Amino acid sequence: MQDGTFFSPGHPEETTPRGNVFARDCPTRKLLDRIGDTWSVLILRLLGDGPQRFSVLKRAVDGISQKMLSQTLRSLERDGLVTRHAEPTVPVSVTYTLTPLGRELLDALGFLIDWAETRMATVGANQRRYDARRLEEI
Amino acid sequence: MQDGTFFSPGHPEETTPRGNVFARDCPTRKLLDRIGDTWSVLILRLLGDGPQRFSVLKRAVDGISQKMLSQTLRSLERDGLVTRHAEPTVPVSVTYTLTPLGRELLDALGFLIDWAETRMATVGANQRRYDARRLEEI
Repeated sequence: MQDGTFFSPGHPEETTPRGNVFARDCPTRKLLDRIGDTWSVLILRLLGDGPQRFSVLKRAVDGISQKMLSQTLRSLERDGLVTRHAEPTVPVSVTYTLTPLGRELLDALGFLIDWAETRMATVGANQRRYDARRLEEI
Repeated sequence: MQDGTFFSPGHPEETTPRGNVFARDCPTRKLLDRIGDTWSVLILRLLGDGPQRFSVLKRAVDGISQKMLSQTLRSLERDGLVTRHAEPTVPVSVTYTLTPLGRELLDALGFLIDWAETRMATVGANQRRYDARRLEEI
């Protein structure tokens, strides 16, 4: 990842078939926007433990609204990261499952979640130091 | 990452000193929001190649405004992910450098960028299939 082979600003065509996240019109950037979305990250993480019902996801992701959960799941389904299965019961029971592509993304996201969870205290200390320095300057 | 040790919804205190991204009030979630931001990702990736001047970053990140670049860099600096060095020339020349903590985050992000750039075509095909199916249903 550090070799810079895909960094070719202004010349995304040189790196085809790889995307170029630096180019405004490259769909990779939109994809990155979507997968960097915190709700998506949390839902993928939960589905990593196995198929889940909508109601279980709703409870587990603290603070998400019904509408936002529906939208996020639909977007993940559209990208082919999760599948939706509706059981014809009354009321209908809907289950979401991670696809192999979604599992792959979750593995990549895992490093990021891990970093955020273990480095949180360090980042917090950095912020307090920064804010104190800014106050001194005023 | 797949062992679920940090998934403890509603009981973030049980996982201390690790954060819990599922808890609404855990700073880890805010941190994840920020590092998942596409502008941050792109800037960290650019700084991975070495220190860069503001003007170079501005050109390389296609579509970013001056204001958004300033804000994003300030936020990265506050988190301790980049350092800012101002050379007292006229006009002042400002250079940004990745810190070791920022390098660590970039390594974690690398898997995600890599996934997005190599799986973009698959995701695009999935979206077209999904949209075609939705049209059939109408």
